[in-house]
Amino acid sequence: MSTNQRPDPDLARRMANAIRLLAVDAVEAAQSGHPGAPMGMADIAEVLWNRHLRHNPANPHWFDRDRFVLSNGHGSMLLYALLHLTGYALSIDDLRQFRRLHSKTAGHPEVGVTPGVETTTGPLGQGLANAVGMALAEKLLATEYNRPGHTIVDHHTHVFLGDGCLMEGISHEACSLAGTLRLSKLVALYDDNGISIDGHVQGWFTDDTPRRFAAYGWQVVTVDGHDPSTIDAALRRARSASAQAEGKPTLICCKTLIGKGAPHKQGSHEVHGAALGAAEVQATREALGWHAAPFEVPADLAAAWNATERGQALEADWQARFAAYREAYPAEAAEFHRRMLGELPDGFAADLPAMVAALGQRTDAVATRKASQLALDAMAPRLPEIFGGSADLTSSNLTNFKGCVTAGPDKAGRFTAGNHLSYGVREFGMAAIMNGLALHGGFIPYGGTFLAFSDYSRNAVRMAALMKLQVIHVFTHDSIGLGEDGPTHQPVEHVPSLRLIPGLDVWRPGDALETAVAWAHALQRRDGPTALALSRQNLPPLGDETRAAAVQRGGYVLSDSVDARAVIVATGSETMLALQAQTALAAEGIAVRVVSMPCTGVFDRQDAAWQDQVLPPALPAVAVEAAHPDFWRKYVGRSGRVVGMSSFGESAPAKDLYAHFGITAARVADEVRALLQRPRQGCGVAAEATA
Amino acid sequence: MSTNQRPDPDLARRMANAIRLLAVDAVEAAQSGHPGAPMGMADIAEVLWNRHLRHNPANPHWFDRDRFVLSNGHGSMLLYALLHLTGYALSIDDLRQFRRLHSKTAGHPEVGVTPGVETTTGPLGQGLANAVGMALAEKLLATEYNRPGHTIVDHHTHVFLGDGCLMEGISHEACSLAGTLRLSKLVALYDDNGISIDGHVQGWFTDDTPRRFAAYGWQVVTVDGHDPSTIDAALRRARSASAQAEGKPTLICCKTLIGKGAPHKQGSHEVHGAALGAAEVQATREALGWHAAPFEVPADLAAAWNATERGQALEADWQARFAAYREAYPAEAAEFHRRMLGELPDGFAADLPAMVAALGQRTDAVATRKASQLALDAMAPRLPEIFGGSADLTSSNLTNFKGCVTAGPDKAGRFTAGNHLSYGVREFGMAAIMNGLALHGGFIPYGGTFLAFSDYSRNAVRMAALMKLQVIHVFTHDSIGLGEDGPTHQPVEHVPSLRLIPGLDVWRPGDALETAVAWAHALQRRDGPTALALSRQNLPPLGDETRAAAVQRGGYVLSDSVDARAVIVATGSETMLALQAQTALAAEGIAVRVVSMPCTGVFDRQDAAWQDQVLPPALPAVAVEAAHPDFWRKYVGRSGRVVGMSSFGESAPAKDLYAHFGITAARVADEVRALLQRPRQGCGVAAEATA
Repeated sequence: MSTNQRPDPDLARRMANAIRLLAVDAVEAAQSGHPGAPMGMADIAEVLWNRHLRHNPANPHWFDRDRFVLSNGHGSMLLYALLHLTGYALSIDDLRQFRRLHSKTAGHPEVGVTPGVETTTGPLGQGLANAVGMALAEKLLATEYNRPGHTIVDHHTHVFLGDGCLMEGISHEACSLAGTLRLSKLVALYDDNGISIDGHVQGWFTDDTPRRFAAYGWQVVTVDGHDPSTIDAALRRARSASAQAEGKPTLICCKTLIGKGAPHKQGSHEVHGAALGAAEVQATREALGWHAAPFEVPADLAAAWNATERGQALEADWQARFAAYREAYPAEAAEFHRRMLGELPDGFAADLPAMVAALGQRTDAVATRKASQLALDAMAPRLPEIFGGSADLTSSNLTNFKGCVTAGPDKAGRFTAGNHLSYGVREFGMAAIMNGLALHGGFIPYGGTFLAFSDYSRNAVRMAALMKLQVIHVFTHDSIGLGEDGPTHQPVEHVPSLRLIPGLDVWRPGDALETAVAWAHALQRRDGPTALALSRQNLPPLGDETRAAAVQRGGYVLSDSVDARAVIVATGSETMLALQAQTALAAEGIAVRVVSMPCTGVFDRQDAAWQDQVLPPALPAVAVEAAHPDFWRKYVGRSGRVVGMSSFGESAPAKDLYAHFGITAARVADEVRALLQRPRQGCGVAAEATA
Repeated sequence: MSTNQRPDPDLARRMANAIRLLAVDAVEAAQSGHPGAPMGMADIAEVLWNRHLRHNPANPHWFDRDRFVLSNGHGSMLLYALLHLTGYALSIDDLRQFRRLHSKTAGHPEVGVTPGVETTTGPLGQGLANAVGMALAEKLLATEYNRPGHTIVDHHTHVFLGDGCLMEGISHEACSLAGTLRLSKLVALYDDNGISIDGHVQGWFTDDTPRRFAAYGWQVVTVDGHDPSTIDAALRRARSASAQAEGKPTLICCKTLIGKGAPHKQGSHEVHGAALGAAEVQATREALGWHAAPFEVPADLAAAWNATERGQALEADWQARFAAYREAYPAEAAEFHRRMLGELPDGFAADLPAMVAALGQRTDAVATRKASQLALDAMAPRLPEIFGGSADLTSSNLTNFKGCVTAGPDKAGRFTAGNHLSYGVREFGMAAIMNGLALHGGFIPYGGTFLAFSDYSRNAVRMAALMKLQVIHVFTHDSIGLGEDGPTHQPVEHVPSLRLIPGLDVWRPGDALETAVAWAHALQRRDGPTALALSRQNLPPLGDETRAAAVQRGGYVLSDSVDARAVIVATGSETMLALQAQTALAAEGIAVRVVSMPCTGVFDRQDAAWQDQVLPPALPAVAVEAAHPDFWRKYVGRSGRVVGMSSFGESAPAKDLYAHFGITAARVADEVRALLQRPRQGCGVAAEATA
């Protein structure tokens, strides 16, 4: 077993130097990158990867592998060197292409691009939170699937992090929760080098970090990050059964010298984020006694590093155990297997239309946040992989559902599994932990907060989109319809600005049916995140359940008129205003069409025929949405009209606010009248007036 | 002196109950709001406001007042009750209007709406960070202006906060930095009631908070939040000269019962965010022995609370001291006075055009981040109120300038004043601390990070806009021009999504002159924040310095052609591509106009004549910006073309990325040709094609 190997000190030192030189050479070749962290953490990496990490380079997707996260992602060459050396499909030529277009060795580690990279890191602190999510996933699955004598889920999550990660607020959110959840198989290794980009950190970062993490309920060990034997001892302690019994995550604070090995630059911020330069590269080679050419790894070191055989043995052992488990617990094994593949339960997709239709048949007015809960009531119990939660707004976001089980500590502080978590007031941490759950596999995570506070979690939402993760954000209280809490809590720019994140599908449904379709979409969308913007206030049904297929297209003709002269496009709570305006205009003999556009992203992916059929280019259009208006120019052009909000909201009952800000059916009708009465100003694009 | 008054225990209890009942009655009248926090913190508030706070209700703007921040802003009625009771211009009728449209008593405290409210709070954790900024402002001004025997700056900053604030990551960022900066006049009072919205916090929040804050270098005291004498002792200790000598901020952890006084609901989350209901209101009155009618304050309590006379005496004393200071140090007093008024130095505005022109006369290619530093070199030394900084990217953001002085701890840990701060890797904390500096007065704060990480600070940027604060964000590395660091660091949606925040002016200048104009704009804009999106890469001058007046309009004709048949609109680093496309098209006989649009927000505020002159409605338009394209439909309509990015970036050298994503002069020219060759599709809006 790899965990029992202890290389002799000289070999260990040379193995670490192999990391250092690969990092130095790759950064030098790219003339861009960060040599300081790989050089500083090389000894730690040797101990962890060579002596402890249970992984199979031949199969980066082996389920029960230990997870490794490089939260200080700028040190990407550390990880690439390790992946290459241990035997992943990452060649020396790949390393030579560091930071070049379409290479497998991007500037920061990117999941899906490089085999063995577990998450995309770079935005500081988020890798650490992803790791918390991965460790939580392991704990939940272990509790759910392991049986006496049959341990099929049993791996650790390791995360490297630097001063930057620890300064970021998200480190507080994620690590505080990790302590509460007693994620004892989470092991964080802190590169305590006293340097960040601005220089020596004592000018801006003087935390007693061990004390801080003790306050979170972590076990904390401090070691010399260049002394393999003490690092090894700390890792043994962290990974031991007794540590797990104690129920504490472990932080190993490793005192290191940034850029260790570069004789003139080590220990200074100069080595952090730039190539060393030819002279210092040469000096480093000499100082380390390294005689190999650039990108050359001496054969004995290559052999010592290679973990392919060990890894295959580890996986084979697990496969045998899983086979025995399957024998003893066939149903559990089948479900486990399905979840690992990321497939929905048999028959679930086929049954979705009936579940959606049932919600669409309701005739009462219901807030879309409540409709979301009703959709969860119908869908979630059939999905063991669902894992919900809220950033301390469960009863407002309505993320809980009938029969959901609260995960977290019981009264004695012991972790109990479940499928809904109170994340606490930690929006950013929640979103990044959800990313970790999705990255780990076996879960479809969703979580709620007020839409206005999507700002707090925004970069983690972006990271989910960049990583193409199935993560669902339940953003309730989606407009001035929130009412009295006032402008700090009323979104204005949030829906349109979320729509600008590439790959994020943003739904703002207008009634229970559209909400159910949005949930069905989100649950079936394997390759990207979905955000649901939901109303606090009750909304009447906009039509019957036969709309379901049209709703799935993102935008559809909700209510047409013969010889319609204009289109009103609306989303969410304002769609009913569009219908009211249509009625009022019809009474005057003005025929208009109402288009409901719950998801512009999905609509934009429809074929041109559908798009032109819904929004005929020849018809002038008015859009209505209680949000910033500029986004709608995409659909109504410069010549159309938009009823929206370009200022912040106010504190008042919702109905007063709608009147105050002029987001009313009467105003929509006025805009249609004005649009139709406006004299034509020439031909072609000349007809477009300045917005 | 107010700080020596000690009301008898029964009076103190009844004074606290006056707060409780005003909060209960107002929430009941509104049928909306949060009674739990005001009731739970009433005893703490009585001790602080009645026995310690140095303020003048008759002049909420008295410079040397103690600052008070309610970071748990949902407890707004606590603050409104205190303001009313101590004598601010906030009447009982105002309290009756709680949470109604245009009242002075909004759902969450809003600065500028209610006299005595120091900052707008509600988004949890940010009030705490604002308070750190206020305390920093005090410390900087005290160091700069106080003289032996002449102490004109000497006030404390107090902040109330709840569990939610402490769970938020920003509390870590701000409080860690406050410890490092030794902000000894910052006193935080933590409402430790063990309840958040989801219920008892032990399921999601088990930090040892005193230990955590000790790790930050704070003094921590734990008291019974319903025992006035121990609260009083803790506040005396926190505010004592010895505490200040120790150089530590103070956290007072107050064990409280949420909703204390409501006999059936206290201690549960039911009392957190909803009206108590008539029965419980009556039961509360009985339990507290309160016989007054709703909104009625017994005369003896009204008299005991009133702080008008005390406050006037405090200010009069300070005015006398300031007069003596003025006598002794007339120049310092004049400058201090000017800074408190928020006026720029005499002659500064008049000299700006020359400073701008000097930068516009440069002929070398320069990155706009470097141009920003050159603008600072020219302008900042003349502004003692400038206070810059960076979230650990000083050498990348180039926020430092010639002669700037680093503020922060010296090698011995002692605070030294200056005008540039290394905020550490704390983007959100930095932005909220900058808001605190601006709120305090005497500073124009600016701070830098990479544009992609504006996501981290986004809600604080929004809060600056909501509060109309002069805060300047220096967001560098503004596109794929960042290069090798890859998609995690390359903004795509950021510039367009920042433009959607109401009241935020977003500049993306294309050369040194436009950058200088942007800085001149930001420094003169007293009533709102400015964001500068700046290039990493060098950009040539787009023209000469005579453009300055046109640049100030936000969008202007950079290069016209006789009989132009189309307009190319561009920003930032892509403006030079527009000029190259124009040249290429001219060679084919296609005349086009190039419009540079560095700030759409400012352009939108110009009169219609300017707008139509720059972007004639009759001319078809192509926009080019290395960012999400949808925003530009506002200016080019559905029929125009946009060269932008609707996907994430990649890791590669910048020039390869521009080619890969097709953001090139050739592509812009192609789009113009396509636009002009496209057959007209009818008349009027019918000419608009789907985007």
